[in-house]
Amino acid sequence: MNTVSLTLQEIGELAAQAFAKNGCDVANTEALVRTVVTAERDGSLSHGLFRVPGYVASLRSGKVNGRASPRVTHKTPAVIQAHGDNGYAPLLIERTVPVLAEAAQKLGVAVVSATHTYHFAALWPETEAIAAHGLIGLACVCYTPLVAPAGGGKPLFGTNPISFAWPRPGRSPMVIDMATAAKALGEVQVAARDGHEVPLGTGLDAGGKLTTDPREILKGMLLPFGGHKGSAIALMVELLAAGAVNENFSFEAAEGDNKDGGPPRGGEFMLAISPELLAGPGWAEHCEKFFARFDAIEGARLPGARRHRNRLSDAPRQVNAELVERIRRLSA
Amino acid sequence: MNTVSLTLQEIGELAAQAFAKNGCDVANTEALVRTVVTAERDGSLSHGLFRVPGYVASLRSGKVNGRASPRVTHKTPAVIQAHGDNGYAPLLIERTVPVLAEAAQKLGVAVVSATHTYHFAALWPETEAIAAHGLIGLACVCYTPLVAPAGGGKPLFGTNPISFAWPRPGRSPMVIDMATAAKALGEVQVAARDGHEVPLGTGLDAGGKLTTDPREILKGMLLPFGGHKGSAIALMVELLAAGAVNENFSFEAAEGDNKDGGPPRGGEFMLAISPELLAGPGWAEHCEKFFARFDAIEGARLPGARRHRNRLSDAPRQVNAELVERIRRLSA
Repeated sequence: MNTVSLTLQEIGELAAQAFAKNGCDVANTEALVRTVVTAERDGSLSHGLFRVPGYVASLRSGKVNGRASPRVTHKTPAVIQAHGDNGYAPLLIERTVPVLAEAAQKLGVAVVSATHTYHFAALWPETEAIAAHGLIGLACVCYTPLVAPAGGGKPLFGTNPISFAWPRPGRSPMVIDMATAAKALGEVQVAARDGHEVPLGTGLDAGGKLTTDPREILKGMLLPFGGHKGSAIALMVELLAAGAVNENFSFEAAEGDNKDGGPPRGGEFMLAISPELLAGPGWAEHCEKFFARFDAIEGARLPGARRHRNRLSDAPRQVNAELVERIRRLSA
Repeated sequence: MNTVSLTLQEIGELAAQAFAKNGCDVANTEALVRTVVTAERDGSLSHGLFRVPGYVASLRSGKVNGRASPRVTHKTPAVIQAHGDNGYAPLLIERTVPVLAEAAQKLGVAVVSATHTYHFAALWPETEAIAAHGLIGLACVCYTPLVAPAGGGKPLFGTNPISFAWPRPGRSPMVIDMATAAKALGEVQVAARDGHEVPLGTGLDAGGKLTTDPREILKGMLLPFGGHKGSAIALMVELLAAGAVNENFSFEAAEGDNKDGGPPRGGEFMLAISPELLAGPGWAEHCEKFFARFDAIEGARLPGARRHRNRLSDAPRQVNAELVERIRRLSA
C-alpha cells in the first residue's frame, strides 16, 4: 500500500474540504472533522479518512442533511431526547453529551434517546466524552442485518457495536468499543481480497453453513462473537439501540435505505452514571486498586489502551495515498 | 442419579425447614424459598435446591445474618441505596425492586447500589421482577477470582454474571442471564467427575496454558466466553458490580471470605429503564415486529424461553434424592 505522510492538521483540512464542498455547513463540518481526526490520531483507521467517501456519498444522494441542527430536549429530568434532524451523528453527540452529563451529575443516572441520525463512526468518542465528565458512559447503535443470531442461518442483527467507558480521574479512561460480530465486515472483506481464510465461527455461507472462506461469508452472513452468549449481547444492543429509543431496528434500517454507500438512518442509546453519587467518595481510589491488580497480570491489556498510547504522538500519520487522492477528487 | 418426585409445594417446604432451622427469620426464609422454588420450577437446577447446603453453611458459620432487615433508601430521586444488613440477597431484592421501579417509572431511569449482601442465586429473579413493572432491567454481580482476563494467566474476574430483561406486555419477557465465563464452574466440575474433556478455550491450567482437561482447569482458572470481547464484558460487569456500587471486587471478596462453602460478601448493580418514557407510546408493538422476525429464523431461540416453557408445568419435579436427604439432615 502506498502511503503519504500527513499531519493531523492536514488530515483535518483534507476532510474539511470534502465535507464543506459537499453540502455541510460549518457546524457539521467541524464536528465531522473532529471525529475523523481523532480516529486517525488514535490509529482507529477504519473510522477515520476511510469513512469520508461514504459520508460524501450520502451527502450527495441527499439522504443525509449536511446542514442539520440537532435538537436536544428533556423528556424527564433524567431522559434526554436528541433529534438528529437527519444529519450525521457527530454534531448531535457534541450537543447531547453536555446535557446528558449535567443530568447524570445531578440525578446520578440519565439516558439519551437519539433518533433521526446517521452514525458512521466509532462509539468511543461519545463514551470518552461522557467519561471526561467523571461519569460511566455506555452507548450502542445497530445497523443493517449482517449477523445471524446464534443457531440461526439468516442475518437479523447489525454488527451492533457497544462502547463502555470508565472514568479514571487523572488518567485515560478504560474504554471498551467493540462490534458484537465475530469480526468486523471490513476484516472479512480484506481477507477475501487477499485470499486468506478466516477462523471457523466468523460467519456462514448463504445456505447457513459454517465456512472459513471469506468470499462465501460475504455472500452469506457474519456470526456474533462468542456463540450464544455473544448473540445475547448483540440482541441486547439491538433492543437498546432501536426498541428503547424508538428508531429503526437493523431490518427496518435496511428496508428504508437507499444503499448509497453511506450508513442507514438509525438511533443511538446512551447512558451516563455518576460513580460519585452511586458509590460515594473514594470510588476512584477503590477502582485503582482493581486496575493495579489487572495491570499486574502479564499479557492482560485494558481495552482502549492502545488507542490512548497512539494518541500521545503528534507525529504525522501514514495515510493510504489512493484514499487521499480519492478524497481530493471528491472535494473538487 | 437417583431422583425423587417432589411437588413445588414440597420443594418449598423442604427448603423452608432448612432455612428456618438454621437461623433464618420468617421474612428471610420466605424470600429464600421463593428463590429456590422458582429456580426448580423453571428448571434452573444449579440455582435451586442445589444451593441450599451452601446457604446453610454460611448461616451456621455466622457469616450471613439470617435475620437481616435490608434497608432501602434514596441517595437521589434516581439512585437507590440498598444495604443488605449482611443477609442473603433475595429479601433485599424483594424490598428494592418496587422502589427502583417506582423511580424508573417516574424519571425514566434509576439505578441501585446494593451492598453488604450475599448473592447465591441466578439474576433473572430481579430482572424479571423489574420487567414485570414494564421496565427494561439489568443486573450484575461479581464473585471471587476464577476467570483470567483474555491474554493473561491469572484469575481476576469472578464468573461475573449479567442479566438483561426486556418487557413484552402480555407475554413472558425476553431474559438474558449468563455467566461471562466460558463455562460455569459447575459444568467443569461435572466434566472432571465424569472424565470428559472440555472444549479448548474453557480454561487454563495453573501454569496459564490452554488445556481440555477439566481437572487441570479446576487447579488453574476459567477463561471468559468469546475471547477478548467476552473478557471486556466480564470487566464491565466487575466494574459495575463492585466499583460502581462501592462493594468488593472479586479479589477483595475472596480475601475477606471465610471459605465456609457459601458465597462471599458482595454488591449488586441494578438498572431499570422505562421504554414508555424513553421510546414513547407504541414501543411494545414496534419491538414485537422485531421479535416476530427473530422467531421466524429457524434455529434461533430467544434467551429465557426454555425457562418460561418449563414454568408452565405444575407437575412434580424430579430432584436428586441424595441432595434431598442431605437437606433433610441439615434441617434436623
